[in-house]
Parts: sequence; structure tokens; C-alpha cells
Amino acid sequence: MAEPSGAGYSIPLDDPGLDIAAGEEFLQEVFQILLEEGVRKSTDVTQKVCDWKEPQELRELLDLELRNDGEGREQLLQRCRDVLRFSVRTGHPRFFNQLFSGLDHHALAGRFLTETLNTSPYTYEMAPVLVLMEEQVLAKLRELVGWSSGDGIFAPGGSISNMLAMNVARFRRFPESRSRGNWDLPRLGLFASQESHYSILKGAALLGIGTDNVHLVRTDKRGKMIPEELEKEIQRVKAEVRTGCTPMSPKPLKLPNASPGSEPLFVCATSGTTVLGAFDPLDAIADICAHHGLWLHVDGLLQRCHGVGASYLFQRDKFYDVSLDTGDKSPQCGRRADGLKLWILWKAVGSQGLGQRVERAFSATRYLLEQVKRREGFQLVMEPEFINLCFWFIPPSLRGQESSPEFWDKLGKVAPAIKEKMIRRGSMMVGYQPHGSHVNFFRQIITNPAVTRHDLDFFLDEIQELGWDL
Amino acid sequence: MAEPSGAGYSIPLDDPGLDIAAGEEFLQEVFQILLEEGVRKSTDVTQKVCDWKEPQELRELLDLELRNDGEGREQLLQRCRDVLRFSVRTGHPRFFNQLFSGLDHHALAGRFLTETLNTSPYTYEMAPVLVLMEEQVLAKLRELVGWSSGDGIFAPGGSISNMLAMNVARFRRFPESRSRGNWDLPRLGLFASQESHYSILKGAALLGIGTDNVHLVRTDKRGKMIPEELEKEIQRVKAEVRTGCTPMSPKPLKLPNASPGSEPLFVCATSGTTVLGAFDPLDAIADICAHHGLWLHVDGLLQRCHGVGASYLFQRDKFYDVSLDTGDKSPQCGRRADGLKLWILWKAVGSQGLGQRVERAFSATRYLLEQVKRREGFQLVMEPEFINLCFWFIPPSLRGQESSPEFWDKLGKVAPAIKEKMIRRGSMMVGYQPHGSHVNFFRQIITNPAVTRHDLDFFLDEIQELGWDL
Ligand SMILES: Cc1ncc(COP(=O)(O)O)c(C=O)c1O
Ligand SMILES: Cc1ncc(COP(=O)(O)O)c(C=O)c1O
Repeated sequence: MAEPSGAGYSIPLDDPGLDIAAGEEFLQEVFQILLEEGVRKSTDVTQKVCDWKEPQELRELLDLELRNDGEGREQLLQRCRDVLRFSVRTGHPRFFNQLFSGLDHHALAGRFLTETLNTSPYTYEMAPVLVLMEEQVLAKLRELVGWSSGDGIFAPGGSISNMLAMNVARFRRFPESRSRGNWDLPRLGLFASQESHYSILKGAALLGIGTDNVHLVRTDKRGKMIPEELEKEIQRVKAEVRTGCTPMSPKPLKLPNASPGSEPLFVCATSGTTVLGAFDPLDAIADICAHHGLWLHVDGLLQRCHGVGASYLFQRDKFYDVSLDTGDKSPQCGRRADGLKLWILWKAVGSQGLGQRVERAFSATRYLLEQVKRREGFQLVMEPEFINLCFWFIPPSLRGQESSPEFWDKLGKVAPAIKEKMIRRGSMMVGYQPHGSHVNFFRQIITNPAVTRHDLDFFLDEIQELGWDL
Repeated sequence: MAEPSGAGYSIPLDDPGLDIAAGEEFLQEVFQILLEEGVRKSTDVTQKVCDWKEPQELRELLDLELRNDGEGREQLLQRCRDVLRFSVRTGHPRFFNQLFSGLDHHALAGRFLTETLNTSPYTYEMAPVLVLMEEQVLAKLRELVGWSSGDGIFAPGGSISNMLAMNVARFRRFPESRSRGNWDLPRLGLFASQESHYSILKGAALLGIGTDNVHLVRTDKRGKMIPEELEKEIQRVKAEVRTGCTPMSPKPLKLPNASPGSEPLFVCATSGTTVLGAFDPLDAIADICAHHGLWLHVDGLLQRCHGVGASYLFQRDKFYDVSLDTGDKSPQCGRRADGLKLWILWKAVGSQGLGQRVERAFSATRYLLEQVKRREGFQLVMEPEFINLCFWFIPPSLRGQESSPEFWDKLGKVAPAIKEKMIRRGSMMVGYQPHGSHVNFFRQIITNPAVTRHDLDFFLDEIQELGWDL
């Protein structure tokens, strides 16, 4: 061999280089720990949602350092216990911090299978079962949105899905851009609502389209894109003449020539915005897109309801050169087989069971809404349209002072203070944020089917208790 | 609630919406199936590597359809068994088809933990353990390449890592491109060797740079980039004047003005090319990059040896607007916590154990090399530099006919014929491809530490047996 690294390669090859029997025993033991500490405790309301430690304290507790020598079995098992103990229990019925939550045993089994198979569904040869399974799951997802044909691919998340959609739109309109880049293209315009997810901006940056060319369309007070504003914005962008400076980029830039207005390309409508859960009016937006010949992408659809990694669902032609790889629809080469998890879950509960989960989420939101309206000191930010319930808790000390000049300032400090207390106590977790002119409020999104009325009552009681003295 | 979907939301909330006890039992049973069928059989040489079925046959065997009603436990367990049975066993000591192979019990335990935690390491609040762990693993990886500072992020694969590197390079040179897109930039030039991975082309397409602007630099006969050719190519690209047509895109394109030469931006050197396992000469390439002020990205480094999803390792400034998310270094929002798997493995075997695996891979390659040289009918494509061993098997019917005009044509059909036989038999799997002027040859890459000398002898015997009568 040419220029060996000097190691000599003298490792004997008579026996396997790892102890297979010990490995199996280890897996067996880890699994029991996992089932007890990671699954059972994670779904048990009598357990804490999190066991908060400051970063430095946690670093010491975990002994994260990686050393030259390996560790023994007992120590490794203890490490697995520690990882579970100090992690946030996202499957807990009182974890409401993120858009995802809950632990579904069938879906988890699907993930374990996927990890054990450790393959990549890029060819039938390598992953016959998984390739056919993704085909089936994607067809079924298309059916749910009412399409009888089309194609699709699983992408690692909603952000990447949004980027892929932009790329497809660009390729469809300007096939030669794939080889020549953006230079020969007119400046492109992307449109999304003010409430859209920030991955649209990230995507525009990554694709060389530029965040300045994302035009955020005004929304109504419920957070829905206003179609008339979209139309106006499209007109404005078309007419706009660009010069070397923009208010956002005051440094004069080298411009070959003052370019005429941009060419509108792509509209991202959101079905279920991140904070308010608003649904953009698809029909009206679709009419505008059809009229101007724009690509309409919908961010949301099924993603949230079914707890899948977002899937990329839109009809498309293949957009990579056949000489690269015919079957290749993803910007990834190797990728995880995300379809199996959803397939097993779907087989287990059926379309009916999935539908019931969606209904249950609405039921839980409606129940909580009634309680929030009934309880003193709780105030809605707005009536929910979807399963996002946004509200403030007003401590007794602030009640009746709504007209005082410092009221909103003070109220904005309440949610963070309650949040800190709840994390230190470990009793539950929920997200808050300011939004537009609204100061910090809680956003509750119940997607976990394990959540009961009792958990929802607890949720409000706990906020009330933690916020009482503020 | 505004405009409910009509469902009525009448689901009672007194009890959890899923049967937790049954779920735990199901997980327990799936795990035992998994351990037996997915882990034990997967690492047992007396088992088949794959149980090949044609797509239509497999569709019927698996009953993939998703229906309205859910299925019972026994049926679901049988489905899990079927998934494992008809999937390719990538952990099998005779699976050599891909760059990854092998099953490490510690790493798999790490993945199970990660899936159970079901969180996203984007904030410390959400994933305290995983955030600190990734910090530690990335620091340790940087240490291995000799860096005492820097930053990094885990990306879902090598292709995405390559794209991120291009994006960072563009941002560093042209910070305003993030907001304004590529239009105000000079046409950029990217450089990679002819042997580089095709994700460089995909990345150029996605980033709006264009595949025509990827300049593939000539390699020597071992597949290494020739530094002098890189220098020449950089000069050529700088001097080149673009007109409206290029041979690759014969359709005349609207060009605002004939642009001057492109501006070289980025060089991708490959450490371990996909087919030949060649290492580009980094020092010489780095000098050229320094001289021209180009960003040097290295594709490979640690990825292959340690069986991790590729990690993104290069020093960088944050390149997303602080107003979007300060801690945000990834194009993804939610993402999997890929660090835990590697952390547990590293804790289990230590740096020393990881090093030994690399040495073992070299040992195995050297052993196989000796055998290939010794056995009649086997012919090396070239001396290996790394752990990629590329060779032909020449059936007796073709031996001694090397000078006949049809020899290479006929030899090119041998590897596919042997491959088909081996898949139908299920005895092993290995990849083949043509490359440049070389007709189809086998590429053997042994990364699985479970592989013994016996497996390597079997590998050659089997090729010989299957190819004997061709
Ligand atoms: C509307 C919307 N789109 C996209 C995303 C991004 O999804 P991901 O985190 O999977 O990248 C989110 C995440 O919250 C979202 O709310
Ligand atoms: C040199 C090189 N770079 C990048 C990649 C792409 O990696 P991934 O499949 O993780 O996207 C590969 C895959 O084989 C490779 O060999």
C-alpha cells in the first residue's frame, strides 16, 4: 500500500474486533434502563418534567470528557441513566414547550427499527422495504391533501422542506439556473406572511436569493396573510427599480447596472403559523399565484398534526441532472429512513386513530380555552383558530391597572418569571414569547394525546400558583 | 374557537388518549424481536445478508397499505419481523456495499437513547445534556485535526456539510450576499477534483452558484488533485470572459452584459474520495488557497473512519442574522442530536479503541490486498492508498485474452453478473462501478470491525465461485 500511516497494520484479524456477546448484553441492559427511565418515567405525571442544572454544574455531574481509555459496562450504564435523568422529558404530559411533544410507543418502536436497520433509502437494492414504505406513506399523505398523483421525499425537517420548495420553484421557472446560477436570472421575489417561519429567510440566504428579496406580506389581526396585500406587494416588487443602496444595506454596493424590478417567483402560505396557529387563506392566495404564474408552496399541512418530521409533498419534476443520479430527489446523499416511524404508527392506529388525535387536540384546546375564559387573572391574546392557545396570566398585583402606563411593561416580565420558577421546580414546561405589539405571553399547544383534563387543570393551577406573588 | 372544522371536539379528556401500559409492553416485545432479528442475526455470518425479492413480490408480502382501522398487537409484531427479515443487513460481516457498514452496540444504544429523548439540541433549555455533549464531541473532533479553537455543528450528512461550507465561504467573502443574494456578486468559481463527490455539484445548484461554475480539477492516476492543475484552472477562470452561450447550455440566455471572468471563491479538497479513496495533497492546495485568498474546505477528515454522520467542523463566524436566532448555526431549526451516539461510543472504547478500529481497517485492507495479488484471476485496479480496494475478477474464459479487442467490454459485464448472483443468493453484498476509462470493478471498503480474516477469504472465494462460469 502506498505510504501507510506508519501504524504497521498489525492488528490480528482472527477474531471480530468487538465483543458481540457483551454488546448484546449491553443493549439489553440499556433497553431496560431506557424503558424505565426514558419511557415509563417520561409519561408519568408524578415525575418531574426536567431536573434543571446550570451548565457548569451539569458539565461536572456528567463528566463529559472523552479520554484515551474506554470505560467499563457499569459506568457506561450509569452514564445512560444520567443522560435520561438530566434531559427534558418531552413525552411528559406536562411538557408543552415545543410544537412537538408526547411519546408514542409505536412511533418510537418504528424509530428503533430504523436505527437498527441503519441504512439509507436511496436505492431499492440497499433498502427494499424502506423504499416501498416511503412510496406508500407519501402516496397516502398526498391522498390526504387531495392529490391523486405527484411525487415527494422526506426531508429532515420543515426548514429544509421550505428550502427545497424554493429550489424546485426556481428550477421550474428557470431550468438553466441549475447550471448557470442566479447571475443570468432577474432578481427573484419571494413572498410570505409576516407570521411565516424564519426558515424562509434562511432558505433565501442559502439559495443565493437574499433575505432582502423575501417580501413579508401584512397579516390581519389573527395572523393570516391578507390576499389584497399580497397582490399589492407583488405589484410593488415588479415595479420597483433597484439602485445601489437600500435602507437595509447602507454600504454602497457594486451594481453592474441599476436593475429593474424583481421577478416574483414564489409564495409561501402558512397553514398553522408558529406562534398564533393562523391559516393563510389558501384559495385567495392560489388565485393570485395562478394569475401571476407564481409557485405556491404551503408550509404546514400535515406536519404538525401527525408529529412527523415534515415531509416534502409538492409535485415536482426531477431537478438534478440524470447524469448525477436518476432516482435522486434530495439534496442529501445518505439520509435517514423517516417513513418507517409514521408507517408503523399509521398501521397501529389507522387513519381513524390519527384523525382522533387531531380531534383530541382540538378538544383539549377548547377545554383549556373555556377554563382560561372562566378563571380570573387569565386573559386571551386572541380567540384560537387552531390548537395554539395564547394567553397572559395577570398577577393580583397588576389586576385592575390595565390603564396604567407601566401595565404592559410589567406584564411582559410575568411570563419569564413564571417560566423560570416552573423550570426550577421541574413541574412543567411551556413556551412564551412577545409577538408584534403584544408583550410576552404563554403559547400552549397540546399535541400529546396522553394529556388529560387533569393535566390541563394542573397547568393553569400551576401558572396561577407560581405567578401569584409577582 | 373560530370556525372549527365541524368535528365537534367531543373527545372526552378524562383518560389518556393512548394505552400507556400496552404501549410499554409493545415496546418491550419489539425490542426482543429487534435484538434477535435485527441485531443478533445481523451480526451472524451463518445468516444471509439479504433476502432478495422483486418490488412487486415484496409489496404483496409486506401489505404496505395504510387503512382506516388500526391493527392488533400480534399483527404489528409480525410486521416488525417482516421489516427486519426483508431488509438488507448492513451490520453483517459480509455486507460491504456501502461506505458505512457494521453494527456497533454502543453506538446503537446511543441512537436508541437519542430517539427516546426525542428532542432538538437548539437550546440549552430544551436539551441541556445534548447541547453540552455536542460541544464536547465537536471540541474533541477539532482536537483530532489539530485545532485548539473553532466552532462546529452536526449536519445530517456529508452532502449538507459540503453545502454549508460553501455557504460559509460565500458569507465570509461577501457578507452582504446574505441579504442581497448573488446578483450583486461577481460570478463565483468553485474548485474540486474530478474525483470529488457529486454533492459539490448539488450544492452549487442549490446555492444559486450553478454547476457550470464548479471547476473540476484534473487528478493524477491515483485520483489525487494535481495542485498545478488547480493553479492553472484558477488562472483560467479568472481570465475567462463569459458570453451568452456556453457549450453546455447551447440555448442563448439573456445576459445583462458579457461578464468578465469569475471570481474564485472556494476549493474543496477531498480526504478519501468515494471510489478510489484518494487523498488530495492538502499542503500544496492550502498554499494555493492562501495565495489567492480562497476558502479551503476539506471533505472527509473524520467522517469515514469513525462512522459518524459527517460533522461540520470549520471555523466560522455566525452567518445568520442575530435577530433571527443567536445560537443558530444550522440551516435546520429542529434537528436530531447526532452527538450522543458518538459520545457513548467514544466513552465505551476511548480514543485508543477508535484508533484501533482505524488500524484494523487498514490491516484488513492489507490482508485482502495480499490475497488479491496472490490469487489467479484477480487484478488490482491500482494499489490502494486508503481502505478502498478496487479490483476486477477475470473469469477463466477471459484469462489470457487481455489483448483481444472485446476483452474490456466483456470484463465490464462480469462484476454486474456476479453481483446479481450474490444478491439472489444473499451471501454477501459489495459495490461495483466503472470509473473513468476503467470498466466495472469491485470496490471493497472494510469499516466493520467485526470482519475477520475468515470473512475476507470467504469474500474472495465467493466472487471466484460466482464468476467462475461467466
Ligand atoms: C410554520 C413552521 N414552518 C417551519 C418550521 C421549521 O421546522 P423544523 O424545525 O422542522 O426545521 C416550523 C417550526 O416551528 C414552523 O412552525
Ligand atoms: C467524499 C464524500 N463526500 C460526501 C459524501 C456524501 O455524504 P452523505 O451521503 O452523508 O450526504 C460522500 C458519500 O459517499 C463521500 O464519499
